[in-house]
Amino acid sequence: MRTTTGWKISGGTTALERVQLERRDLRGSDIAVRVDYCGVCHSDLHAVHVMDGVVPGHEFIGTVTELGSAATRFAVGDRIAVGTVVDSCGTCKNCLAGEEIYCTTGWSPTYGGPDRVDGTMQQGGYSREYVINEKYAFPLPTGLDPAKAAPLMCAGITVWSPLRKANVGPGSRVAVAGLGGLGHLAVKFAAALGAEVTVLSRTPDKEKDARALGATGFVVTTDEAQVKQAYGSFDLIIDTISATHDLDPEILMLDLDGELSLLGVSWEIPVNNLLLLIGRKRLSSSATGGLPATTEMLAFAAEHGIEPDVEVLPSARVQEALDRLKANDVRYRFVLDLADLDQTPAQH
Amino acid sequence: MRTTTGWKISGGTTALERVQLERRDLRGSDIAVRVDYCGVCHSDLHAVHVMDGVVPGHEFIGTVTELGSAATRFAVGDRIAVGTVVDSCGTCKNCLAGEEIYCTTGWSPTYGGPDRVDGTMQQGGYSREYVINEKYAFPLPTGLDPAKAAPLMCAGITVWSPLRKANVGPGSRVAVAGLGGLGHLAVKFAAALGAEVTVLSRTPDKEKDARALGATGFVVTTDEAQVKQAYGSFDLIIDTISATHDLDPEILMLDLDGELSLLGVSWEIPVNNLLLLIGRKRLSSSATGGLPATTEMLAFAAEHGIEPDVEVLPSARVQEALDRLKANDVRYRFVLDLADLDQTPAQH
Ligand SMILES: [Zn+2]
Ligand SMILES: [Zn+2]
Ligand SMILES: [Zn+2]
Ligand SMILES: [Zn+2]
Repeated sequence: MRTTTGWKISGGTTALERVQLERRDLRGSDIAVRVDYCGVCHSDLHAVHVMDGVVPGHEFIGTVTELGSAATRFAVGDRIAVGTVVDSCGTCKNCLAGEEIYCTTGWSPTYGGPDRVDGTMQQGGYSREYVINEKYAFPLPTGLDPAKAAPLMCAGITVWSPLRKANVGPGSRVAVAGLGGLGHLAVKFAAALGAEVTVLSRTPDKEKDARALGATGFVVTTDEAQVKQAYGSFDLIIDTISATHDLDPEILMLDLDGELSLLGVSWEIPVNNLLLLIGRKRLSSSATGGLPATTEMLAFAAEHGIEPDVEVLPSARVQEALDRLKANDVRYRFVLDLADLDQTPAQH
Repeated sequence: MRTTTGWKISGGTTALERVQLERRDLRGSDIAVRVDYCGVCHSDLHAVHVMDGVVPGHEFIGTVTELGSAATRFAVGDRIAVGTVVDSCGTCKNCLAGEEIYCTTGWSPTYGGPDRVDGTMQQGGYSREYVINEKYAFPLPTGLDPAKAAPLMCAGITVWSPLRKANVGPGSRVAVAGLGGLGHLAVKFAAALGAEVTVLSRTPDKEKDARALGATGFVVTTDEAQVKQAYGSFDLIIDTISATHDLDPEILMLDLDGELSLLGVSWEIPVNNLLLLIGRKRLSSSATGGLPATTEMLAFAAEHGIEPDVEVLPSARVQEALDRLKANDVRYRFVLDLADLDQTPAQH
């Protein structure tokens, strides 16, 4: 066993506990990774309440420090990126199609699930070292800032997938609801893909930011006249709002054959099927993405200079990050710098 | 004005009233049609409660009896079919794309809405004569039995549209929930398109019928083991159940990228978005179809010998038809024979 240091959920509060934790010895295809930067995802906030004793973190950038005996993809010192999937069966039809996140036997999450080989609980990227099968790590493309790139690995791929699935490109009319970690990347990606992008926001004060991110339209959703004006206007709405909300206005803003991609809601929500019916519309959702899609997303981000807007904090300030995320007080993603875990913590 | 006889909703009961009604004088592009057979749709049952004074009926087969001065598509004596759309703006992008049912100004329904020219309430096909702009009538293809073909014009096109939209063909795995007017045609069309078809039913007693219609699979949805066995099995589920029901088992029976086409529900229904998310699935709905799609559907039906299974009743028995439809006691669609309207009604 190897030991490292990380931030563990403790007692269901955002005050994570700094702990020593074990990592497995390297298997043949494993690499050991020094975790440099780890994004703070909404899932982590949820995990605080349901995963006591777990170290969160599933979007991180690290540096390869050691290779397993059969590991060949990377060299020591390579910068790599890790997302939400660290293993899968590899043989089901979805895995064979490069859709590992939809592995029919269940994908293995970066934290909070059992390792497929030894059954131990996986501990995530809020830690200084991670051990991963090299197949599920990605080379960080040249040109992407390691501190900023981390959120691409969950927030980024989560919005990239529906944009690509809907073949968004020049001529597409895309709206983005919710301007957080996912939403701001949806605007950037959609604009870079050539779409005409509109941000849907409850308040007018985000308009300047929206336009700076690449949006050319802005609809204040609490202004009924503006919403009505936008009826039938969009081919795709990427809704990243992580709370139950009324979907009717969004469905009405879709044009014929339009799609509402609902990414922030992972529970039951009322849907007015009549509104889908009268415009042959659809409601969809999706998870992050498989290995090929993630590779494609990273290459596109590097090529188009798309980086998340982040606020980097030393990992010791993880509670501040979680609390401010909860209050939607972040533009647009917190990233923890794990370097402080190399130091002896200050005494309380 | 022309006068004819029909069955009018009266007092919100299924005991429709036999009345004289007026039809407009023929405009240039109009044709007068003797209505021969009219299907009894679930919408008609709903209309009984909300459209007092209206004559229902929006899927009928008739015979051209007279031509407007500029009408050129048909000759007197031609058999024609009429569906749910009798007019639209003709100039919006959806009309120009042949999607008249999605006319951005609102389509003009066969009954229960105002005529676009004179604003009078349209009265439907439970009557002996109808007057319609020839553009919205369809030649009945040779080989289709007029008595049986009527339900193609609403039930048929309603299920045809999502099957075509999803590109159903050989290799597609389609399930159909609800074996009524829509469902039995969904099975026939999907099988004729080359799909492998499974019927989802609450009770095992419909299996024989399902197989006779062309299904090769059958899942009893009240049998948890059968449902679990079917998880991940379908590319498309055509759900024609006209009541709120739990969508979770259906979503779970979809494979990656699968689609649940919800056709029987035109109101708010709870949807578990997590189940869409974990398989990149979608919920969709749609209305009937535009003129090109309806023409295509009729040609396909004629070519493949697809006719609705109907029970033909003289129109004077309309109450019996509506009541039995309400009780789901029909295999699979009632069709009213309007010929009895030529006779003086029996005295009460
Ligand atoms: Zn995440
Ligand atoms: Zn797999
Ligand atoms: Zn109908
Ligand atoms: Zn129109």
